[in-house]
Amino acid sequence: MNIVLAPDSFKGSLSSIQVVDIMSKAIESVDPGIQSVLKPMADGGEGTLEALLKAASGEKIFFSCTGPLGERSESWYVELENKTAVIECANIAGLQLVSEGSRHPDYTTTYGLGEAILKAIDRGNKELIIAIGGSSTNDGGLGMLQALGMKAWNKEGAEVGIYGKDLFQVERLDVYSIAHKIKHVNISVACDVDNPLTGQEGASHVYGPQKGLSSSEAYDYDKALENYGRLMEKISGKQIMNIPGAGAAGGLGFALMAIGAELKSGAGLVGDAIGLKETIENADLVFTGEGQSDEQTLYGKAPGYVAEIATELNKPIILLSGSLAGDLYIWEKNFSGCFSILQRPGSLADCIEEAEDLLYQSTRQLTKLVHYFIDG
Amino acid sequence: MNIVLAPDSFKGSLSSIQVVDIMSKAIESVDPGIQSVLKPMADGGEGTLEALLKAASGEKIFFSCTGPLGERSESWYVELENKTAVIECANIAGLQLVSEGSRHPDYTTTYGLGEAILKAIDRGNKELIIAIGGSSTNDGGLGMLQALGMKAWNKEGAEVGIYGKDLFQVERLDVYSIAHKIKHVNISVACDVDNPLTGQEGASHVYGPQKGLSSSEAYDYDKALENYGRLMEKISGKQIMNIPGAGAAGGLGFALMAIGAELKSGAGLVGDAIGLKETIENADLVFTGEGQSDEQTLYGKAPGYVAEIATELNKPIILLSGSLAGDLYIWEKNFSGCFSILQRPGSLADCIEEAEDLLYQSTRQLTKLVHYFIDG
Repeated sequence: MNIVLAPDSFKGSLSSIQVVDIMSKAIESVDPGIQSVLKPMADGGEGTLEALLKAASGEKIFFSCTGPLGERSESWYVELENKTAVIECANIAGLQLVSEGSRHPDYTTTYGLGEAILKAIDRGNKELIIAIGGSSTNDGGLGMLQALGMKAWNKEGAEVGIYGKDLFQVERLDVYSIAHKIKHVNISVACDVDNPLTGQEGASHVYGPQKGLSSSEAYDYDKALENYGRLMEKISGKQIMNIPGAGAAGGLGFALMAIGAELKSGAGLVGDAIGLKETIENADLVFTGEGQSDEQTLYGKAPGYVAEIATELNKPIILLSGSLAGDLYIWEKNFSGCFSILQRPGSLADCIEEAEDLLYQSTRQLTKLVHYFIDG
Repeated sequence: MNIVLAPDSFKGSLSSIQVVDIMSKAIESVDPGIQSVLKPMADGGEGTLEALLKAASGEKIFFSCTGPLGERSESWYVELENKTAVIECANIAGLQLVSEGSRHPDYTTTYGLGEAILKAIDRGNKELIIAIGGSSTNDGGLGMLQALGMKAWNKEGAEVGIYGKDLFQVERLDVYSIAHKIKHVNISVACDVDNPLTGQEGASHVYGPQKGLSSSEAYDYDKALENYGRLMEKISGKQIMNIPGAGAAGGLGFALMAIGAELKSGAGLVGDAIGLKETIENADLVFTGEGQSDEQTLYGKAPGYVAEIATELNKPIILLSGSLAGDLYIWEKNFSGCFSILQRPGSLADCIEEAEDLLYQSTRQLTKLVHYFIDG
């Protein structure tokens, strides 16, 4: 019997790596002869690279870069066996890298991400996957593009800086030299949000507050991104400000599309990178799961993606989540069974505290049941 | 595919009849071709007869009798197809039949139970099962035995009454005429408690308070039952005051043993009466469950009994309970899988309010999963 474990993280409780480790121990407790294949999933946010290294063969490539506050910093990306480079924005310009008191889009930059792309190109990586979740920035990708060679001037004709606050100065852009640098690489962006660059659903209003913007600052940033976006659309000849995902990561989605990158589902990119489909082809059973499952589970999020593959391959798949919310009927059709790890009444805090034990026990019980029917 | 549903009630929430009805709808929603066999269980307490009528063929036999407060009353027992009579004490002398303000062992009697036994004997029933849970009495079975023909006198040589308070007067007993009446019948008692007749673990101290005794009254009753018990042991020649279950139902267990009845597990008696074993022989899967499962589940309670039969017949059995408490390892070995109906964090009150929906959904998901492996 062969079980593939492809859960997302249980947010606020367990990483996807912890989840597969706990599940595999529970499965082994039922019958050490059952083979577990660990394929922790990620959706492009923080922790994507660690999950990837657990689920696939690859190595960490270390490099020096500019940190989120402009400081000199060290970071790393993952180079998979097939030479695909997977770069995590959270790992270079992430909110978690900035102490709470210092978080503000005025002073943060995506410059280091541009340096990471250059590093990957230098190493000869032709396929780049960029996970853009978890950024501390609202610079519209200004810093990243400057690292790649873009010039940006203010109305006095002086070059502007690399931070969010410098967006307000931008009057002229020149991206000419970027195209040459990236002409042999293919950039895919793992992106799970649909926001346009600007407007009430745009980067500044929706994600600005959690990065340190007040409401009135968000209003100002929205206008600055609109001006910057228009300039970029003009010189690139692409209408991309309203493409879903342009507003991801403080406008980084927009900037990456401007240089030809394609935005894709994070789960899909991760799934491809770790060979999930090939693995499930040999499975007798698949487990997926997440902290809380609801109507959105089937749309873009990891469990929905894993379920699609399992259904396509006609393999049984169990959803095992911390909590099942909303109407089961909407999304249960792609799963052979949907279960919660809960075993007794209790608060959310109780469940989070007991998550490891609850996950172990429920995985064990479900495995026992299926094992009865498969190996009888 | 054939599924046997043999749950206990979810105490405080759903009767076992409601549980099997909800489960069978959930199973039908997965595939109308799946056959559900409804065998709601009971342990001898209140609701035993209703469950029995749902799980087996039988008819209600109505009769007039003495109610718990000595009033004229109507009650009924169940006569199964094989002529076994099943009599429920809760239905004749039950706590639920007495309004809260009137509950007190001084004024309640088991007399009606004796009349029910006579009625069954009159109808020619040779096998009697008496479910003794849920009584309002602490009369040591005095009333019941008097109905069957026992004489009880006080020290002045006058016959005493039939109520709990009359126990205090008893100085002499004569059970001679009972033996003749019951010589052709076999009485089994469904009893799930281990209490001796008297002492700190006896009927008065343990169950007296919930029937209306103060602590000092319980002390007095304990002494009265001790005197009465000693008299009975002497004339019956049986040492039965300390047999586990003697203290059940206010000493009714003791009185029934005194006239030759045997105390058995309620679940086992009910299981035999509804032909559970024969039914499970033809099952592909068995569901059992209860409100809360803990270390005691395997010992005498219905789910443990059902699991024993399923294990003996090598059939997969799922425990689906409101809540799983304590250490799963102690009791999971007899089940193919142990699950809670819970789907999200919440208080016990939330879970009870949502129990119907939670039970439906979890039964549906487990059935979907098993159905995949049985019918592909």
